[in-house]
Amino acid sequence: MKPQPKPAAVAEILATGEEIRTGALVDSNSAAIAEQLELVGLKVVRLNGVGDDLDQLAAVLKEIGARADVCVVTGGLGPTVDDLSAQAAADAAGVGLQTNPAALGSIEDFFRRRNRPMNPSIRKQALLPDGAEVLLNPVGTAPGFQLRIGRCRFFFLPGVPFEMKRMLADQVLPRIAGLLGGCREVRRIKTLSCFGLTESLTGERLDGLGTQFPGVQLGLRARFPEIQVKLYASGADEARVAAALGQAAGWARDRLGDIVFSESGEPMEAVVGRLLRGRNASLAVAESCTGGLVSHWLTEVAGSSDYFRLAAVTYANEAKTRVLGVSQETLARGGAVHPDTARDMAEGVRRLAGATYGIATSGIAGPAGGSAEKPVGTVCIGLAGPGRTFGCRFQFNYGRRSMNKQMFAMKALDVLRRELLGLAHTP
Amino acid sequence: MKPQPKPAAVAEILATGEEIRTGALVDSNSAAIAEQLELVGLKVVRLNGVGDDLDQLAAVLKEIGARADVCVVTGGLGPTVDDLSAQAAADAAGVGLQTNPAALGSIEDFFRRRNRPMNPSIRKQALLPDGAEVLLNPVGTAPGFQLRIGRCRFFFLPGVPFEMKRMLADQVLPRIAGLLGGCREVRRIKTLSCFGLTESLTGERLDGLGTQFPGVQLGLRARFPEIQVKLYASGADEARVAAALGQAAGWARDRLGDIVFSESGEPMEAVVGRLLRGRNASLAVAESCTGGLVSHWLTEVAGSSDYFRLAAVTYANEAKTRVLGVSQETLARGGAVHPDTARDMAEGVRRLAGATYGIATSGIAGPAGGSAEKPVGTVCIGLAGPGRTFGCRFQFNYGRRSMNKQMFAMKALDVLRRELLGLAHTP
Repeated sequence: MKPQPKPAAVAEILATGEEIRTGALVDSNSAAIAEQLELVGLKVVRLNGVGDDLDQLAAVLKEIGARADVCVVTGGLGPTVDDLSAQAAADAAGVGLQTNPAALGSIEDFFRRRNRPMNPSIRKQALLPDGAEVLLNPVGTAPGFQLRIGRCRFFFLPGVPFEMKRMLADQVLPRIAGLLGGCREVRRIKTLSCFGLTESLTGERLDGLGTQFPGVQLGLRARFPEIQVKLYASGADEARVAAALGQAAGWARDRLGDIVFSESGEPMEAVVGRLLRGRNASLAVAESCTGGLVSHWLTEVAGSSDYFRLAAVTYANEAKTRVLGVSQETLARGGAVHPDTARDMAEGVRRLAGATYGIATSGIAGPAGGSAEKPVGTVCIGLAGPGRTFGCRFQFNYGRRSMNKQMFAMKALDVLRRELLGLAHTP
Repeated sequence: MKPQPKPAAVAEILATGEEIRTGALVDSNSAAIAEQLELVGLKVVRLNGVGDDLDQLAAVLKEIGARADVCVVTGGLGPTVDDLSAQAAADAAGVGLQTNPAALGSIEDFFRRRNRPMNPSIRKQALLPDGAEVLLNPVGTAPGFQLRIGRCRFFFLPGVPFEMKRMLADQVLPRIAGLLGGCREVRRIKTLSCFGLTESLTGERLDGLGTQFPGVQLGLRARFPEIQVKLYASGADEARVAAALGQAAGWARDRLGDIVFSESGEPMEAVVGRLLRGRNASLAVAESCTGGLVSHWLTEVAGSSDYFRLAAVTYANEAKTRVLGVSQETLARGGAVHPDTARDMAEGVRRLAGATYGIATSGIAGPAGGSAEKPVGTVCIGLAGPGRTFGCRFQFNYGRRSMNKQMFAMKALDVLRRELLGLAHTP
């Protein structure tokens, strides 16, 4: 007789805090955790959110402890009186709290390394339920912990997204993999990052993927202004899953063409940086409507000082003339928002910085400043390089200044990417 | 004998769908609903999320029906087989389904008005539980409905955010106001935006607020790099709530001092912009380590072109000399990261732009580039103005390049805010 398979382990997620309960904060943590748990082969069956109410929190922990095998909890680990997770966990497990020496040591260490004084209330963060295993936090002051309540193993993590993500990856997922042992399903995701088509047009290019590759699921995720095409495959056999995903990804890449700028989840600014570095090329940026955003994105990439030389955010026309050397004549002929002006800005900043490439943006982000001829959402992008120098005009409008700025900035980087790769420039 | 007040009505929210359960989609609907329910005086006590599993969905509806007075459910109203909300609601209420003529009429109308053919599966959306009241959807095909399950009144809405928001505002909130009648609690929130102390030190300054003002609740919310101090008050009498909140806010403001930069939720860049505008002053920015972020923030504010003239992101030393006129001597004496260099950058960009004020940042955002004398997290900020010109040095390190950049940029804006208001510059 074959042994019956054990019922698959199920997980829940609990987000805590008044800002969650009252809707002051959109809970992005729970989705990020659910995605990771599903990837390691654990089925997430329920998400929960409650405020900072000790009794309710303890009751919900007990409730989940009777239903799930694994639960990840976020929030409530800080030093203030409304940080209640440790106390609630202790109440739910029916144990007391005590200072955890490893937790206290790591907190003291955090402050020592940063030469910051440690005020007394911080010590509260080392108070953990009896029997809890501390989960050290290498990037923040609040350690997490692991504790069994009922039939469920709980992992308590901070609510700060980057601390949570780091601890989830380093400490929680490996422990869960250990718990699941060999009964895990293999799950794989392939992400194709796209820019240049709307979400629905991107989706239409992939019509038929489901029938062609029945084992592969398709998901589109808008991470404005990029669109991520996600392909999911799962199964018992690692090699088969990888092969199915590889074939589907190849098919999708052919259909999508050069709107795919990354297959590793890299943001556009990192892709452009890699291309510049590979060509020993440097870059200077002249920004008007994007207001520094292109430069900000480029310098988010560690090591960008290797190729990024200078940005000039020339909001006023006078600055365009004085700093970038755009002629009064060009400005008078076409105005500040014109392909020729953008071209001359790019050329000017390239010359000023002595860089290989110059790119420039000039447009109308809104809400005011539009006209019939140049409505809000108009953007002109200039590029100056060793091969050629040009300006072009595009039209977008997302009804919000900050979204328009993001789209303009991404478009400028994509114009540079296409130039570096010798691709066509599509409007 | 005085009549006992009725216990305040409580609400829950339920988001449904596989994309919610698996984390493929961040659930922004629940936060939007929670915020609106809280504003009309209904306390949201719990958020829930489940996938498209009929039995589980029906069980969760029953569970909420035993706990809450009001629940808003999103998702699962579409035409496909995995749209299960109506069936689950009928199961939980112990009733059957039947075609609702008003719902069917509105769906047919939707397609007629758009001249689109209506395929038969769409009719499924008019199948509602017996006893349900239809909630018409003016902006989509799926109508919602209202149904009592247990002690709780449920409102089922579509998952598409803009359809949900429209129906929430037009149909759900007025019905809830009717249900609450005169027993609605008045709720008010006051936000003090702070910058300059850590969350725990900010919290310590407010120790004793709870005992001093028993009707007012305190919440701290880190919106890195600012800290929002939130004061919540509620009660039956509008004037009393406002008075209690006003007194507590005054007390908190005195304790917090000049780290409070806004009492209306404005971001720092808007506060600085308002101060500049009020003084008819203009601004130019020289950025090194912040890489364009100060400029990007400033230009997020609509109308910032009135006072913002120019930013120069001078990453390379050569650019600091060539564009901003920082002398070789200053750079040789103290290096790029030095108060004197930051001061000369501020003076240089002020001169270049002909602006009233110049501010500058030069520092080490990391991860590489630190030294024993100038570790990662060191930032020098320069300010040049009509009154005086100076440079100063600060030390922060959050272990991440992007967080260091944000902290540096905010500090530069705060140095300018303090200068404009004549406040002391605290390190």
